[in-house]
Amino acid sequence: MTDMLKFEGKYYPDGRASDPREMGWMRGAPPDCSKRITFESDTFLDFPKIRWSLSHMRELTATANIRCDRVNPSHFVRSDRTAEIEALSFIDETGKSHGFVDALYDTYTDGLLVLHRGRIVYERYFGALEPQVPHACHSITKSYAGTLAASLVHEGVLDDNELISHYLPELEATAWRDASLRQVMDMQTGLAYSEDYSVADASIWSYARASGWRPRPPGYVGPRNLCDYIQSIDRDGIHGANFSYKSVNTDVMTWVMERVTGTSFPHLLHDRIWSPLGCEEDGYMIVDAAGMAMSGAGLSATLRDLSRFGELMRCNGSWEGKQVVPASVMHDILTFDEPSKFSGNFSYRSMWWIPKDELGGFLAAGIHGQRLYVLPEAETVIARFASHPVASGAANEAITYPQMLALVRLLSA
Amino acid sequence: MTDMLKFEGKYYPDGRASDPREMGWMRGAPPDCSKRITFESDTFLDFPKIRWSLSHMRELTATANIRCDRVNPSHFVRSDRTAEIEALSFIDETGKSHGFVDALYDTYTDGLLVLHRGRIVYERYFGALEPQVPHACHSITKSYAGTLAASLVHEGVLDDNELISHYLPELEATAWRDASLRQVMDMQTGLAYSEDYSVADASIWSYARASGWRPRPPGYVGPRNLCDYIQSIDRDGIHGANFSYKSVNTDVMTWVMERVTGTSFPHLLHDRIWSPLGCEEDGYMIVDAAGMAMSGAGLSATLRDLSRFGELMRCNGSWEGKQVVPASVMHDILTFDEPSKFSGNFSYRSMWWIPKDELGGFLAAGIHGQRLYVLPEAETVIARFASHPVASGAANEAITYPQMLALVRLLSA
Repeated sequence: MTDMLKFEGKYYPDGRASDPREMGWMRGAPPDCSKRITFESDTFLDFPKIRWSLSHMRELTATANIRCDRVNPSHFVRSDRTAEIEALSFIDETGKSHGFVDALYDTYTDGLLVLHRGRIVYERYFGALEPQVPHACHSITKSYAGTLAASLVHEGVLDDNELISHYLPELEATAWRDASLRQVMDMQTGLAYSEDYSVADASIWSYARASGWRPRPPGYVGPRNLCDYIQSIDRDGIHGANFSYKSVNTDVMTWVMERVTGTSFPHLLHDRIWSPLGCEEDGYMIVDAAGMAMSGAGLSATLRDLSRFGELMRCNGSWEGKQVVPASVMHDILTFDEPSKFSGNFSYRSMWWIPKDELGGFLAAGIHGQRLYVLPEAETVIARFASHPVASGAANEAITYPQMLALVRLLSA
Repeated sequence: MTDMLKFEGKYYPDGRASDPREMGWMRGAPPDCSKRITFESDTFLDFPKIRWSLSHMRELTATANIRCDRVNPSHFVRSDRTAEIEALSFIDETGKSHGFVDALYDTYTDGLLVLHRGRIVYERYFGALEPQVPHACHSITKSYAGTLAASLVHEGVLDDNELISHYLPELEATAWRDASLRQVMDMQTGLAYSEDYSVADASIWSYARASGWRPRPPGYVGPRNLCDYIQSIDRDGIHGANFSYKSVNTDVMTWVMERVTGTSFPHLLHDRIWSPLGCEEDGYMIVDAAGMAMSGAGLSATLRDLSRFGELMRCNGSWEGKQVVPASVMHDILTFDEPSKFSGNFSYRSMWWIPKDELGGFLAAGIHGQRLYVLPEAETVIARFASHPVASGAANEAITYPQMLALVRLLSA
């Protein structure tokens, strides 16, 4: 019998019942019409199709490659603790008890990789994901971008006190005119822009249609690329007053990076992350109709390569003896504290989340369950891909958070 | 002063003047409107944009990966003869004298790699192409597909005497009903289908719009994937009577392969070519809205990986001591002779061209100048990518053919 799970008032089949391999999405030549997932139908990110799509984004839309160098991939040492970890059970925030693996299914996990002291202690794939297949990172993309922007500020290539219009004069007549680069990097901008995925006319959907992340309906007359869309955004509120999570900030920040460095974001990722970390597979990014990568959500990477990025951050920006991200950038992210600007008990700095909670550390997070937990005190990195039916993390945090806590307690024991 | 070249009654700037890097296509954040190349504009394969686009197909449309195994890439030994080769001059078919390098520019070459006795004697890149970047192979894709189909026939997985409708019952009411797999593999089908790229309403453009190779105009109501398109084709003429080059045959052949093996064409390419040959980079294929790869023209590969395929064929299907393509398949291609079915002095077998000319050997060929010459007697393989303004090979053969002849004579001296 299929276990049905309820989120936001709707019932969904659980992770086992919605396994995309079992469901036969895109199998057959051609796939039966009932098993096809097409970009143009605009249902490819609907549940349960999303369970296939997030591991196959490049088969749905145009992408730019992020090449791994092939020559010297870094290799993880393994110190397997699968049996212990999978024997864990824990109580979720509603009081329900879960086994570790059942909880992964109940949160629609596609892959989970745990590094402890730099060694792989757990690595398991579900659904459509495989070790060599890149999965959508969604807003984890932002943390890659924020890290690069902060590094460029450290190097003096960018000045985070400068106004966006200094770097991008074409934004003089928009909300971005008097926003500083730092305000954009920390999402402290006042924008007439809404990001509630559960609301049909939220700005995030205009952003998605402009960027090529979602198809455009017949007769669409809106912006056809990210830069045009960004120029359509007016101010609403005061820049610098409060944290307000709006994805489009990332694309403005990346636009500045690309303008000043003369290098595309996928190439920056190659030069500054994929190459120095010896990533083992190519990543890729969704590109818009002007060839610009969607840095708010457009990265796909393998779980192992995501874990490498997490391990870099855990090790204070150092990788195999080389400082890849300046220590001052790490210090700035970890010590940032402007509580008056946040409505919850967390911070957000250079596009990293810093919750003040029992788990500790900091994280990158994306819709539908993407997570990269960086836990320096626990000497642990947890990379997780998922294809949860609901965009908002709230739907799975009640299970995932106590699960991660149980895991970290085991490793730290 | 720009040297203008004339093809099919039109003048075009030469290879140097149309260099896509010099022209600045897709540079800048965002690229200036005059320098943008977008899929939806339907001009991305027009000259001179094509000079950028053929090295960037995945940035324009959805693609499926063909993974290289990373673990044990094969390495070419080099025995460089660049100086000798570039010192060559030759007389083209119109009586004009050319230097070797000038001729490469005059034929809009993006890359040329020459293997002699398995060693790289010449490798040079032009325009937007780099050693690690896959370039559109166009109809060279067909020769990969034909080789795999012939191998599957050899293995008894397919029977080339069987009718297409035996394998694909859904084609019972179409031109394919009573065509044999062999007739399709050799393009000896009678189809109401035309393939003159210079004619605006030729069937090839319907094929291109259905397959996702070209955008669909607003209000488009035609087929939205390859299989639907294939089902729309009626018979015109007698199957088996004559050779008639029609790309859609390849897609029908590949559809049969995919149906019978239960494996997609990109995966077949990985399993049977990329992996055994130790290809050094991923390739990729354009996929349609049903996820089916366009085997008539949709492959992109690096010049080196294309050269590996040529070397495999030169060595009678053997690679590093292992028979990757059955020797009987090679023998069948090389000894095939049904002159009454061909209007010129050549054959076409299992999607390879076998010209009866001074150069000898056999070749794979694609529009806009793609060529893979396999010359067993001369112990030579020549892989060439180009972005010629004109689709038909006729526009550059007057230069390219005598150039290749001069090259082979030098190597054979």
